[in-house]
Formats: sequence, C-alpha cells, structure tokens
Amino acid sequence: MSETDLSHLAREGLLEPPADQSTGELVAHDGTGRVELTFAPAERSVRVPPGVSVFDAASWNGIAIDSTCGGHGTCKKCKVQILTGSVPVSRLDIRSFSADQLNAGWRLACLAQATNDLRIEVPPLVTRPKAATVGVGRQVILRPAVQKRYVELTEPTLSDQQTDLARLLGAIDDLELTVDLHALRRLPTVLRSADFKVTAVVIDDVLIDVEPGDTSARRHAIAFDLGTTTVVATLLDVSTGTPVAVQSMLNRQQPFGGDVITRISATMMDPDALDRLRELAHATLDELAQAVCKEGGVEPDEVYEVALAGNATMVALALGIDPEPIGVAPFVMSSATVSGVLASDLGVSIHPGARAVVLPALGAYVGGDIVAGMLATGMDRDKRMRLFIDVGTNCEIVLGDGERIVSTAAPAGPAFEGGAIRCGMRAAEGAIEVVRLGDDVELQVIGDISPAGLCGSGLVDAVAELVKVGLLDTSGRFVPDDVAASVAPALAGRLTKIGEERVFVLFRPDGAEDPADTVYLSQRDVRELQFAKAAIATGWSLLLEELGAEAGDVQQVLLAGSFGSYLSPASAVRIGLVPKLPVLRIVSAGNVAGEGAKMTLLSLRERAGAMTLLEEVRYVELSDRADFNDKFVDQLAFPG
Amino acid sequence: MSETDLSHLAREGLLEPPADQSTGELVAHDGTGRVELTFAPAERSVRVPPGVSVFDAASWNGIAIDSTCGGHGTCKKCKVQILTGSVPVSRLDIRSFSADQLNAGWRLACLAQATNDLRIEVPPLVTRPKAATVGVGRQVILRPAVQKRYVELTEPTLSDQQTDLARLLGAIDDLELTVDLHALRRLPTVLRSADFKVTAVVIDDVLIDVEPGDTSARRHAIAFDLGTTTVVATLLDVSTGTPVAVQSMLNRQQPFGGDVITRISATMMDPDALDRLRELAHATLDELAQAVCKEGGVEPDEVYEVALAGNATMVALALGIDPEPIGVAPFVMSSATVSGVLASDLGVSIHPGARAVVLPALGAYVGGDIVAGMLATGMDRDKRMRLFIDVGTNCEIVLGDGERIVSTAAPAGPAFEGGAIRCGMRAAEGAIEVVRLGDDVELQVIGDISPAGLCGSGLVDAVAELVKVGLLDTSGRFVPDDVAASVAPALAGRLTKIGEERVFVLFRPDGAEDPADTVYLSQRDVRELQFAKAAIATGWSLLLEELGAEAGDVQQVLLAGSFGSYLSPASAVRIGLVPKLPVLRIVSAGNVAGEGAKMTLLSLRERAGAMTLLEEVRYVELSDRADFNDKFVDQLAFPG
Repeated sequence: MSETDLSHLAREGLLEPPADQSTGELVAHDGTGRVELTFAPAERSVRVPPGVSVFDAASWNGIAIDSTCGGHGTCKKCKVQILTGSVPVSRLDIRSFSADQLNAGWRLACLAQATNDLRIEVPPLVTRPKAATVGVGRQVILRPAVQKRYVELTEPTLSDQQTDLARLLGAIDDLELTVDLHALRRLPTVLRSADFKVTAVVIDDVLIDVEPGDTSARRHAIAFDLGTTTVVATLLDVSTGTPVAVQSMLNRQQPFGGDVITRISATMMDPDALDRLRELAHATLDELAQAVCKEGGVEPDEVYEVALAGNATMVALALGIDPEPIGVAPFVMSSATVSGVLASDLGVSIHPGARAVVLPALGAYVGGDIVAGMLATGMDRDKRMRLFIDVGTNCEIVLGDGERIVSTAAPAGPAFEGGAIRCGMRAAEGAIEVVRLGDDVELQVIGDISPAGLCGSGLVDAVAELVKVGLLDTSGRFVPDDVAASVAPALAGRLTKIGEERVFVLFRPDGAEDPADTVYLSQRDVRELQFAKAAIATGWSLLLEELGAEAGDVQQVLLAGSFGSYLSPASAVRIGLVPKLPVLRIVSAGNVAGEGAKMTLLSLRERAGAMTLLEEVRYVELSDRADFNDKFVDQLAFPG
Repeated sequence: MSETDLSHLAREGLLEPPADQSTGELVAHDGTGRVELTFAPAERSVRVPPGVSVFDAASWNGIAIDSTCGGHGTCKKCKVQILTGSVPVSRLDIRSFSADQLNAGWRLACLAQATNDLRIEVPPLVTRPKAATVGVGRQVILRPAVQKRYVELTEPTLSDQQTDLARLLGAIDDLELTVDLHALRRLPTVLRSADFKVTAVVIDDVLIDVEPGDTSARRHAIAFDLGTTTVVATLLDVSTGTPVAVQSMLNRQQPFGGDVITRISATMMDPDALDRLRELAHATLDELAQAVCKEGGVEPDEVYEVALAGNATMVALALGIDPEPIGVAPFVMSSATVSGVLASDLGVSIHPGARAVVLPALGAYVGGDIVAGMLATGMDRDKRMRLFIDVGTNCEIVLGDGERIVSTAAPAGPAFEGGAIRCGMRAAEGAIEVVRLGDDVELQVIGDISPAGLCGSGLVDAVAELVKVGLLDTSGRFVPDDVAASVAPALAGRLTKIGEERVFVLFRPDGAEDPADTVYLSQRDVRELQFAKAAIATGWSLLLEELGAEAGDVQQVLLAGSFGSYLSPASAVRIGLVPKLPVLRIVSAGNVAGEGAKMTLLSLRERAGAMTLLEEVRYVELSDRADFNDKFVDQLAFPG
C-alpha cells in the first residue's frame, strides 16, 4: 500500500478523534475519568482527561486556536472565552485581560486547565497555528521541547552587578529554568563576545546553551528508528516540523546475530559483548546523525534533541543495560521508561547538551517502537476497534477500541525475514516480493532482475496463491500429484521433489544459468510460515477475547513495520495472518516507529501521550497463558 | 585563639539562637515574616519563617524531638501534640494516629509545617536524635541528602513481570525518585547477583545506585575548602556526622600566581590557561579525595557527595568557567549558584553518580567560602550585632543583627599573607607570628627555630606593639631618634636605617649567621599594613553605616580564615583593624569555610539555609561608593 491509501483513510475520517455529545453542564471531577469540552462556534465536543489545557484539547480535536508560541504561555494570542464551567485565573491572565474581561470568562487557552465540563468560544484565527502532518495522517501542533529565545540584555555596571545568569534569566522570566554546567561555562564569553545580544537554548526547563546573536530560526532534532536490522534517522526542523534529511543503514550489531535473541545470547556468553554491542549501536546512530546533518546542511551543534524508538532489547543495548533478563523467562525489563538521558549517552555527537527522548516500552517484547507506532497511528484516539500488527521475528500486536487497549507479543520466528526458508532472503535486490498464480507463475522481483530468492511478502503470496489454486490444502500439505494435475494442470508440473522434499518451483533458470539458482517453496517452508502466522493469529485472537470481541468487529487492521507495510492484504487474509475482513479494512501503516519518534520531538503533547499509553495499555503475556497451545493448534490451518 | 575560646563562647551562650516571648495566639500569616513556636514543657520559643517544619524549628532551637530517620517521614517517631494553633493532617499522620489523637492535635513533627503561631507539647525522648556539633558550636541535626535503603524484593515471575526499577521503587514508595542511567545499568545485574536483596542509594530525589546486600551503614561525603593557597578535604561519615579523615595540601594552581587576580590575569593572557587551571584544581581535589579515603579506610565508591566552598574565582576555575568578568570592573559572576554538578565535573573520582554541592556566592568577592562561614558561625541566627571578618588579600566582611545582614569585600592587598612586606613570609616554619615589646623584643616563631621572616599576625603584632611603646606615631611614622630614646630607651637602638629606609630591627642574627638574615619592619611595611587595615576598616565602618549602627554596638567580632584565626585580638584592636571593643568580644572562628561545607553535607536544612542567605544578605559594592576614598583616608591612622 502507498501514501494514497493513507490519504484515502484520512478522507474516510478513519483517523479522527472521537467526538461525543455535549451536555454543557458544569460537572465536578474527582481527578479521574474525562471532562467534556465543547468548542463554539464549531460546536465540536471532545472528552479529555481532567487537567489537559483547553489549548491542547482544541488542537487534539483539530480546532485551531490562535498562537504563535505553540502554547508556551508567551505569545498571549490564544484568547478564548469560557461560556459555561469555570477555569481559575492564571498569573498571565491578569496581565492579558481587564477585570471585566476576566469576569466575562476570558482566559489564555494554553494556561486554562480543564477540570470540569466547559463550553468555550474560540475567536476566529488571526495567525495560523503551526502544525505538521506526521504518521498515519496525524496532525500535530508544533510544540517542541526545544525552544530558543533571542534577547538583548543591558550590560552590567558597578551599580548593576547582577550575575550573567540572573541577567539572562531575568529576560526570559516566564520560564523557570535550571542551567547546564556547559551553558554556564559558555555564558560569560558568549555574552561579552556578542555585546549581550544572545539566543538562549532551552529544552523543557533546562537552559542548555547561549548562542551569540539571533539563532532562533535554527532548531533541529533527530528521530531514530533503531531497528534490529535497519536503523533510520530523520533530521527535523522543529520550528516548521519539516524533515530536512533522512538516512538509513544496517544496524552495525548485525555480526552479533540477526535477531534480538541471538544478540542477547551474545551478551550471556561473552562478558565484553555488552560493551561492544553498545559501541556498535552508538557508532550506527552517530554515523546516521552525521550523515543527516551533512545532507541537510545543518551543523551538528544545531541539533539539540534526539528521539529513540526501538524494541526493548535494542534500547537496552544502546544504553548499555544488560538485556539478559529480557531474553529469559520471566522476561523482565530493567525499566519501562528512561529519563535524563543525553544524546551523548547514546554516542551521538551533536550539541553537547542535547537531550535524548527514549520512547517508553509496554513490555519486554512490546517496546518503544510499538509505542511510537501507536502514537503515529493514533491507536489511543480512534474509538473504532482497530488492530495494529507489526510483523517480524517478534510480532507485536495491539488491539484497541478507543476505551481499552491491550497488547501482546507473538514469537513468529524468522520466516518473515527469509530465515529458516530454503530459498528465503531479505527484501533486497533479486527477492521475489509478489507472486500470482494463474495459467502460469507471475513474479515481481525487487530490482527487476532474475529472481534470487523469496522474501517475506513473496512467501506469504506464494502460500496464499497455492492455497487459492488448490495445490496446498487447508492443512498446509501439498496435494498429491493426481489432484494437482486435476485442479491446476498448468502448474502441476512445478510440483516436484528436491532431495526427499516436495517443493513448488517458482523460478527455474534457463540453460545458461546454474540449476542451483532454482527458486522454490518447500513443504517445510510452508510449515514454517504456518507456525509463524499461527503465533500471530493466536495473539490477536486472544486479544479479541480479552476485549470480548469477534474478528468481524475489527474495523481496521494496520500492518506496520518494514515487512508488514509490503504485505499483500489479500494474501494476509487468505493465509489467516489477519482476521478475515474486507481487504479495504487492511491498510499498510508504513514506518510508524520513526513517525512516532518524530511526533515526540515536534510535540510535548504527544510525548506525554507516549507516557500515558504506559498506563492505558494492558500487556498480555502469551507464554503465561494455559490456553496458548490449544489456540495455536486451532490457528495452524489456512482459512481456505 | 584556640578551641578553648570557642567552647568558652558556647558556654557564654554567644552562639544560641534568638528567643522571643511567646504569645500563644493563633495568627494568620501572609507567607512572609516569621511565626512563633513555643515548645512545652521546656517553654522555649523560637521564631521561624512560615513553612519550616516543627521538627526543624525544634532542632534549630536545640529542642530534641524523637526521630530515627532524621526527619524524613519514615520512622514515625517524631510525634508531637499541637496545643494551640493549627497544622493540617498529613498523609502519614492518618497512618500514625487514631481519629481521636488527630483531633487532639497529634502530628508527626517532620511533616507539620508551621504556618501560624503554635504551642507544641514535645513528649520525652525515647531515642536520641542524631546530631553533630560543627562550626562555631553549631548543633546540626543529621539529615544528609545521601540516603540508603536496604530492601528485600520478591523475584519476578511470568505473572509478575514488573520491571526491575518498578519493583525496587515500589519497595521505597515514600520517595519519589528519578533514576540515573548509571543506576539503571547496574540494576539488572545487581538484583540478580544479590538474590534481589539490595541497598538503594539515593541523593535528594535521585536513585544513583543499587548495591548488593545491606550497605546502609556505609555513607560518606567529602567537604572541600578550596582556598587560593591551601585546600582542605574532610571525609565525613554522614550517618554519624563524624569526620573520618582530614587532609590538606597547597592548591596546585600556585604556579599561576598567589592570589585570585594573578590567576584571572593568567586566563586573560593565555587562552589555554583556563583549561590548565581547571585541570590543576581537579588534580588537587582528587588527590585530596583519594588521600582522605585511604586515611579513613573508605572505598572511593562509598563516597556519594562532595561539598565545595571556595571564593568565586576558585569555584569558577574549578568548574571551567571563565573568571575574567570577576577580575575586571564591574566585577560580575557568571552565576551565584550552580546546581546539577557532579563530583566528576570537579574531577573527583569517587562514586560515578556522586553529586557536588557548590556553596553559593553573594558577590564576585564574597564567595561560597564566606557563605559557608556564615553558616558555621550562625551569622543568620544570632540576634546580637556581630561582625564577621575573613582577613586576607581580599577581605570579606559581614555585619548582621539577626534582622538584617550586609556584606562587602575590601581589597586589603597581600600584606597579611606576607606579600609586599620586606621580610614578609607565609605563616610557615621560621615565621615570627607573635611580637611583644617591653624591655626587649619577645618573639614567637613557628617551629621554634631561628626567625626567617614575619607573617601576617607577627606583622600586626609588631606594628601594634610599636604604636603602644610610642616608636610609631598614630600617623604611622617612625618617631625621630631623640623621641625614641626618650619613650623606649631599651628599644631605640633597633630603630635604624637599611639603605635609605628607616626600619625597626626585630631579629639580628649573631655573628655566626648571615647579616642578610636580619628580620626587620620598614617604614614602607608599616604603610602597606596601614593601607590594608584601612581598607578593611572602611569596609566595616560603611557596613555599620548601612545598618545605622556605631562601632560600639558590635557585640562580637568573628575573625575567620587561616590568617584571621591566628591574629591577636588586642593587636587587631590597637591598629584599628577591628572596631575598638573589649578584647573578649573578639574571637577567632577557625576554618569556618570547611565547617560550613560539612554542614551542607550533614543537613539539608543547612543546605537550604545557604540558599536563603543569598536572599537575605545585601551585598554592598565598595568601589561604587563615592565616599570610599574619604572614609579610607579617615581610617589610615592608628587609633592610638
């Protein structure tokens, strides 16, 4: 699926947040539950947790309130009138409104916390709020943690001996800041070299630097999708939300094994492996950081924040945390969240005070990459029942209905990445990625060259098509030759033996080529795929059970990850990897881990949302389920 | 003066906090001013800022309330009964008392904030509160930032997959902690190697480590007095408040100059000097840290915090902050406070997560060493008028009366450290430190060897005695020979000339020794001392003026610093270095900078007190005073 499908989705309204009926009544709240805000004149209502600012609630609901500071309480443009319900008067309200206006309910929306049901009049826009579209059609109001403030300070005299820091902080006293030692070291020199005209660089509530002159237009951050196989870095201009450069490369940890378990095993067998794996992760991240800076024409010193989305093992290795307890029962992480991390702790040489946002993990096998994916797909926002599947060696599954979210991890094994498949290979040049069976075999090969093997999507297609034409029965066994000749005479000849094993030949090289280059699907390959898809199907069927739902209730299936995004929805349905649903309900979500990481850099609101997911999502451990094996056996067959 | 004088002071009650009459009435407060607490049955009253805990107010006033946790809200022993006035019920009160008891006013003192006047019944002690005596007779209730908690955790299972961190934090959930990455890295390994029986190491609200087994009895910290000349380190057991080891050495920055100005000049002339000076400060601090650990039999890893008291320049250099703006008008610091500093930022190799407390500075020339001295002498607590003088090249002066505190710095020049004095030398072996003139010259020499020169205290003595016997007139001029022969015939022969200059010979070597070893005081030496003491006297006289007080109002003069502590009070009075007061009112305070640093490590209360001083003390810049030169000339003469 391509971008067209996503915009199609957006047009369908599939990605809109839930809207409820407004009551307009003033309701006290007990710190839990939701409050309902109704925005006039649009008459749009939204239910939010108590304590959310009116500004955030509006942007969440796609209602634009005027702002040039992105909701930081500094531009004083986000004026709204509270028509029903009450909001206390803030310190800045007093500076912004007359007594009459305050009595009439005028407040700055960014400081107005919704603690009871409200009806709010939103004046027409004067300036457009700055927003960016990220992930699966998600609109994100720009409110990055990285802020810059240009100030022109008066110079000290004997009668004004304020310290350099007090002088600077006095000029930006709407922020309550602590100060990095690095910034303090630079402060006296920079102030005096720049005639006391400087730009303060702030992340959250920390002053991390002062820069000479006005550099406020230069604010960058890097989002990392730290995959076990592939690592992607996106350089963002956080002022505009624009991606400036994107680069990807193979994770340099590859020599230690292709999947998380082999890398964990390496640390268990060799005491030096943890250090080495950390260094390799750092080298990967830093090489990408330097590459995107170069591509984007941005100095590394102008990059003040990074976000890291990865599975729990990749994140642990990058942070130098022993992953062994993740790898063996009872599968325990050292922590779901990691705070106070610097980019330099990840080996990334950008601004020396740059911070790192590490996406939190839901469980040892539902990591920060999946939390990022949930942000990017708005899994926590949509009230329809949606199923999110990140297909891979470890397959993460999330099911939500807008009220409840459950997740699990299914051990699918390496089949989808070409592992344990006779002619399997990664989705690289020469891989068969699409298979169609009719009167003949129709193949689509990456790079349009002679086929060299079968990648995951080709494997699923091949099996699905063989089931469709009747050469594989629903139990996954190749039919006898006589049956083959009867149901698919044009293809029956390809059903043969290599060694002792029955195979279906997908590609047979012509005379000039090496017969060893034959690409085929063996009986054992089919079994591997059956085990993989059964693990996944067991996962989502147990999650459906948890929510008391049926497969048919699922209104959308999001296939995520580098493999899932290339999968044919029809084939996925046919082999039972996803519930049996109309194909249009099954959509590719793309690299949602990277998109979610970008969102946390562009929006503090989304960053907080990632933390909220930790509390909202219930993790279901499959290996602890007595009924797992039963269910698994049920799912082995193809739906037919 | 020696320790005897200090205990004498304490016996005199000179160091007690102020006590006022109790009114017993319930008085609302507006967040400023003081509230009055009266403790029964002792009937002691104390006035404290609103918001101070009853526990702190009691310990401040020397009233012991039962506690084994040092006021952390965990032992639940500090039960008191509020007889008059109101204190809200805290979360832990509900767990600790019955409804009847709560109604009768029973509260935990450590959580009871005094926001109105209170009358409080304190039950007799069951356990003794842990306290230490530090500084000038200051009693400090032990409440270090460094805490340890030994916990025995249940091991994870498939049905209890809590993360390691959640498991640990759940066991110490009265603390709200963030976690150092270092601690997180150690966590999985330490938990499993120690069968989930571990000790959490906490500083303030940060978990900095987990240690296998029960290490809760091992808690150490190092207090540094970072002098321009001498650096002193004291290793403390913060569980008991006991100093475990003390070491001192010369500041390794010495080759860059003997005083702060020459070191600042070095950074202005050589761009590499700042780095070099920082490295030398670090080398000094670390050498001392390793030495006290070795002496005390403590592993460096068991030291979790350091405190640094130094003048603003020494602190800037140690932190790698350019000191140039401190050295040139208008004399500006980069910051009065520095937070978030690690011991490793100071080059001290102890526990990798160890924190550094940097004593805040009041001004470019009234630094953290003086703030420490104010803590150690209780300058902010005593309601009598007291004058604190740290005599040195830069002389810091503080005047307080319990209500108001003012401070200034006087540029005394190097005379007191032996600089610019013909036969001047540091207070080392061979230095004349005491001079008495009668029928002959009586000298006291450090190390009881042949005199090699004159140190500061000897210089002050010599001049004071010469004024007393009439060989120097009050203008500071040696009297003519005929006058000398008349007023002091036994000494007149020592008044002679060396080159063109009149001198008084203090020590003339016998025939066997080199005549160049003669130790004398020259007319120019007297002038140097006059300038130095006039600068100091101008400082305190202007401070007296600021408070509308007279010299005679001063009830105690505290002479601080390595020089001030050795000064003869009588001589100090006679030359006018201190106000003309009864000698008993002039006391030596010892190395108060180091003592104050220790206090910040032993007591969070005192640490907060150091910050409070920043707001309470008004800094008076002398070089900005139009009347400075006038006053200075007035102070040049000796009082006679």
